[in-house]
Amino acid sequence: MNRISIFSPATIANVSCGFDVLGLCLDSVGDEMTINTACPKGVKIKEIIGADLPLVAEKNVGGVAALALLEHLQPDHGFEISIKKNIKAGSGIGSSAASAAGAVFAINHLLGSPLSNKELVPFAMQGEKLASGSAHADNVAPALLGGFTLIRSYEPLDIIKIDAPEELYATVIHPQIELKTMDARSVIRENITLKKATVQCGNIAGLISGLYTNDYNLIGRSLHDELVEPVRYILIPKFKEIKVAAMSAGALGGGISGSGPSVFALSRGVQTAQKAAEAMASVLQDTGIPFELHVSPINPTGIKIL
Amino acid sequence: MNRISIFSPATIANVSCGFDVLGLCLDSVGDEMTINTACPKGVKIKEIIGADLPLVAEKNVGGVAALALLEHLQPDHGFEISIKKNIKAGSGIGSSAASAAGAVFAINHLLGSPLSNKELVPFAMQGEKLASGSAHADNVAPALLGGFTLIRSYEPLDIIKIDAPEELYATVIHPQIELKTMDARSVIRENITLKKATVQCGNIAGLISGLYTNDYNLIGRSLHDELVEPVRYILIPKFKEIKVAAMSAGALGGGISGSGPSVFALSRGVQTAQKAAEAMASVLQDTGIPFELHVSPINPTGIKIL
Repeated sequence: MNRISIFSPATIANVSCGFDVLGLCLDSVGDEMTINTACPKGVKIKEIIGADLPLVAEKNVGGVAALALLEHLQPDHGFEISIKKNIKAGSGIGSSAASAAGAVFAINHLLGSPLSNKELVPFAMQGEKLASGSAHADNVAPALLGGFTLIRSYEPLDIIKIDAPEELYATVIHPQIELKTMDARSVIRENITLKKATVQCGNIAGLISGLYTNDYNLIGRSLHDELVEPVRYILIPKFKEIKVAAMSAGALGGGISGSGPSVFALSRGVQTAQKAAEAMASVLQDTGIPFELHVSPINPTGIKIL
Repeated sequence: MNRISIFSPATIANVSCGFDVLGLCLDSVGDEMTINTACPKGVKIKEIIGADLPLVAEKNVGGVAALALLEHLQPDHGFEISIKKNIKAGSGIGSSAASAAGAVFAINHLLGSPLSNKELVPFAMQGEKLASGSAHADNVAPALLGGFTLIRSYEPLDIIKIDAPEELYATVIHPQIELKTMDARSVIRENITLKKATVQCGNIAGLISGLYTNDYNLIGRSLHDELVEPVRYILIPKFKEIKVAAMSAGALGGGISGSGPSVFALSRGVQTAQKAAEAMASVLQDTGIPFELHVSPINPTGIKIL
């Protein structure tokens, strides 16, 4: 095999009380990528459709992730990457992660899968480092593994995949405003109270329990972020109204996707997720802010070969 | 039935990264209690063997818990309680909780079990309030339910029982020093960094995952308390040495039981738990501090009828 086409999915990081540790994989939105072997060594970004992103491999998140993997695997040939970006940059649903994870997944596959998807995570993280300055795994891990992924620790990297209950659906609304990562970070308080930390621990523990036991009600009761959402939501227009609308429509809970501006809700069943979508959309419709809307099951396995 | 004898188990609260949210139930150490119906209404503490504790119901943790339950159930007669205390007061393994949980369990049973064990928790918490000034559920919940118990929230009270992997054993060493609750509380820092909170969240999420998937290695990797152990351990003689000894003997991890001074370790299999016990004991033997030692499976169901 010298050519592969893949679907590389969008992802939600910072799943509410899982700030900085829990992500999930979406299924209905993602990039398409085609990677083929090429004669010269190294990585060439052949084409990017749908986004104005660097074609120089060293400046492209997919290129950097691919180069990190090639440095490790040392194949005797190179690769060409074409990307059709469907995930908008800056949306907060893992646009850079999809490119980085997709590139390493495809190359590993073309080389006969010497590494497991979990082992690919550190290479994909190099793409994230280029994109945001921090080699975080919150989005590349769910893109590569599917389901929910817990980053228990970075040193050493310890990732636990947790299957999602089958009827769990995500709704994501992306208000098309620019939210600078620097601004999203600057509002975060470096110091918090022990009390809030223990409440967050109770909720993340409840959420994990709910995922293992398919307890949708418990999942909903646990979806509260004490630490970051209360200070970050002000950067997202109508955040509280969007969340209330989703809950009123029957969603279990929700929060800020990644560092925003997308807002997500989780629901039991596609119909409720669709109702939540309509309710969330109606809030933004009143503002005139353009938005994109996604309703998606939780993708159980991550990147797919097309 | 007008008389019941029960075994009310010791418990470990603040299970490492589960500070303030996670407790577990022991099996090999606990109080014995006999409760019988009596003609006059109210609660009479008939006898306490093995401890110098108040016999006036309103000043006794078991009595107060029992009175709270009677206030709710309004039976037309009273109860007499006899307690054989095997759990030492101030040991940090839920001595007061055993009395409080045992009293409400027995009375509820004698009245035909109108309430579930989970519904009994708030009444047992009234005993804890008398004992420590705070109506916490960390010990009474595992005593009443068995296994591990997560207190996700207090308002409203939301308790999730998590079954322990079958081969999980606890080792507890109780250095017989007096550690005042006030001192144990005073060392705690009210403010912590967000970074430490997210590390704690990763670990409690990993621990919960490990419990559901019987992943002993993951349980061990997750048993780190970033928030309280690093400041509280100084109150416990040779804490670090005891913990290192347990780990060297093969324990998965451990920490301070409750607010101390007991130290616990969790191990896979009774033989490793026994080895951990010997290693932990050898540290304290060198100091001359008297201690008690317990090796116990995780009690799957809590209080038992004898």
